[in-house]
Amino acid sequence: MYEPDARFSRDRWSDLKNPFRKIPGSICAPRGFKCAAVFCDIKKLGTGKGSEKGQKRDLALIASDVPAAVAGMFTTNQVCAAPVKISRQRASKEFARAIVINSGNANACTGRRGLTDARRITQLAAKALSIKENEALVCSTGRIGVPMPMKNIERGIRMCAPRIARSTSNARQVAEAIMTTDTCRKEIAVEFKIGRSTIRIGGICKGAGMIQPGMATMLGFITTDAAIEPGALKRALKIAVGQSFNRITVDGDMSTNDSVIALANGLGGNSKAEIRRSQFQNALNFVCLELAKMIVRDGEGTSRFVRLRVRGARNDREAEAAARSIANSSLVRTSWCGGDPNWGRVLCALGYSSADVDETIVDVGYAQPGSRKILFAFRRGRPTNVALKTLAKITSAPDFDLLVDLHRGPGEFVLYAADLTENYVAFNKGDITDPAALGG
Amino acid sequence: MYEPDARFSRDRWSDLKNPFRKIPGSICAPRGFKCAAVFCDIKKLGTGKGSEKGQKRDLALIASDVPAAVAGMFTTNQVCAAPVKISRQRASKEFARAIVINSGNANACTGRRGLTDARRITQLAAKALSIKENEALVCSTGRIGVPMPMKNIERGIRMCAPRIARSTSNARQVAEAIMTTDTCRKEIAVEFKIGRSTIRIGGICKGAGMIQPGMATMLGFITTDAAIEPGALKRALKIAVGQSFNRITVDGDMSTNDSVIALANGLGGNSKAEIRRSQFQNALNFVCLELAKMIVRDGEGTSRFVRLRVRGARNDREAEAAARSIANSSLVRTSWCGGDPNWGRVLCALGYSSADVDETIVDVGYAQPGSRKILFAFRRGRPTNVALKTLAKITSAPDFDLLVDLHRGPGEFVLYAADLTENYVAFNKGDITDPAALGG
Repeated sequence: MYEPDARFSRDRWSDLKNPFRKIPGSICAPRGFKCAAVFCDIKKLGTGKGSEKGQKRDLALIASDVPAAVAGMFTTNQVCAAPVKISRQRASKEFARAIVINSGNANACTGRRGLTDARRITQLAAKALSIKENEALVCSTGRIGVPMPMKNIERGIRMCAPRIARSTSNARQVAEAIMTTDTCRKEIAVEFKIGRSTIRIGGICKGAGMIQPGMATMLGFITTDAAIEPGALKRALKIAVGQSFNRITVDGDMSTNDSVIALANGLGGNSKAEIRRSQFQNALNFVCLELAKMIVRDGEGTSRFVRLRVRGARNDREAEAAARSIANSSLVRTSWCGGDPNWGRVLCALGYSSADVDETIVDVGYAQPGSRKILFAFRRGRPTNVALKTLAKITSAPDFDLLVDLHRGPGEFVLYAADLTENYVAFNKGDITDPAALGG
Repeated sequence: MYEPDARFSRDRWSDLKNPFRKIPGSICAPRGFKCAAVFCDIKKLGTGKGSEKGQKRDLALIASDVPAAVAGMFTTNQVCAAPVKISRQRASKEFARAIVINSGNANACTGRRGLTDARRITQLAAKALSIKENEALVCSTGRIGVPMPMKNIERGIRMCAPRIARSTSNARQVAEAIMTTDTCRKEIAVEFKIGRSTIRIGGICKGAGMIQPGMATMLGFITTDAAIEPGALKRALKIAVGQSFNRITVDGDMSTNDSVIALANGLGGNSKAEIRRSQFQNALNFVCLELAKMIVRDGEGTSRFVRLRVRGARNDREAEAAARSIANSSLVRTSWCGGDPNWGRVLCALGYSSADVDETIVDVGYAQPGSRKILFAFRRGRPTNVALKTLAKITSAPDFDLLVDLHRGPGEFVLYAADLTENYVAFNKGDITDPAALGG
């Protein structure tokens, strides 16, 4: 199986080469998936009239022509949004047919009313698409604590359903509709063979702030025409998310609304028995990892993408704890922002992590992305002679790799992280006169 | 005993009224303590010549005329500086006589050489003050990973020792000498009675970034002329630090050098037997809490001081976890920066904390500092009707109180926290051409 970590442990710091052919169409690339998106003014009540001119779309539908095996991974935040509660339950079943998604309102912290609204949204979508209510899932992202503008949603679904089609341009519109503070669409599709069948996997996602552990304020939607048992799809998605969306951090905040949903409708015609020996898991991992990295690169206000690899921890869990402690340290992240190879802060954050650390044997090094040449700033517990300016040549680039070796055991973890910039603060400090600033 | 929490739990959100008479002199207020500080150019090698004109002092000595009971609390960071290793061991003994402190170099991550240097610094100080080497403690703060400029230190100690005196102006110079990125001195002294004896406690501290849990990049020095057994002083300091320096956070980073050291020389003449029933613990708590709050108010780039109180957790430990999760969330802290009552982010950070949270019964409220009137934004799991603008009137002030009630049990925790500003980022992103930017 395609394992990013296994590759990294042979000191191949380079990004994984694309082993799969990318194709256009994102979520509409697999056979039998349709989608559409409209603007129905969810964010700023009353100022729009359903017109799409110059307005970012905010409501989307994704549907499969036939019932599809369904899998979902959701936020582990104890405070979770109403749509998460509904979709988690429906994704635990075997099949589903549609997902309705809105941006502009997270439907989180909205009490019982939020739950009623979320369920009503799936009813409206199901009716418009002539499917059963419990075949529809719902995802929301946006402002926390504000009731859903149900009239606008209702109008949106009515407008959206007739436009639904298998089209690259519709897929692009959906990728746009789910964006909140994202500055660019995040979409991908790949193609590969299972036996004689050509199978496709498409994916889109969004996410910019509140990005950390058990996924983050992110929504991800994966479609595939592979034929796969629902149980096998659920297992495959769990593995893929663990190696991708769970290995990124922008600001250490885990959202109330995180959801990744996969639909597999079987129209690719492979035999289900072939799935196990096939490239399916690899391709799904690849799609999820590519999408996850797009989220980090588009993190709110970020200017640097850091591939942080901790190895030599006593076990993988401690390696992860060390990596998260470093990548979520305000001081480490601000130093990244300045292109400053401030390895002292890295060691400091390492020291207060829950990983077992013996500072007299630790290594800290930097490398250009993809380069095997690691410049060590600190080696076996001592500062090296490598000049700050030499290190700064690496760390002042928009992408670099940071290696920390604890020399205590076989534990490893790779985390994709970003810097903390003035723009992030300016962006998130909000303008209290603008209700839209209350993002979530 | 004076218990901030006990007062808070009667919903007295106000700051504790000063129950002790403040007096001038800080660490020199208690009888028999002398100090001095000089500039010896520790930070920028070679550019100074020991002159103090226009230069911030960077080396200080504090000494007691007679052996003093000693207590110390140190960073729990696994990566800890050489002076911490030396002083931790010496503070575990019964008596000490002097502390030598430098800013500009943390002597952290400096390998075996750092340890030799730290020991040598205590030798030099002991010789200059005619005391034994193991009666001297050492504390350093500043840049991480750079060898100590021992020649400058040596010259500094030689210059400093003859100037040592019991003087308010010397104490002020010492409070300045220990500053790094602090913008103001942090000093206090109080006076109270034990039996017929007038007892004094003085304190100074520094700290600006890397401020969080087990203290933080902070140094604190407490002097008192109370007569107290060394074991009792150690217990008292532990309690006082737990209620003060361990309840603040600026940026969630715990430093490699945190140290609080107390010296009690007994010259106040009280009977040791009276200590238990006296106000000593209360006064020590008060001194530490006042100093700790000064650190938060002077946190790097901060513009707001937030007293965050979590109550109703299943136990105090969960209340603390919830408070730290909220106060260290980048999104919560940036919203504070903007004066934005973004309670959705508070709930989100609460939800991913390790505290047990039932979102359907949670309250979130704001109050002016010292006011009993709490404006609830979220009550029993639902948004209230209080307008954002009304909440913003509170949160746009430089000080406010934030209350979170989990309604799950008796657990409480008060945390003094600060916002995350563009200035913090600008300040910490560092200028890689300036080696002084590599602070620690």
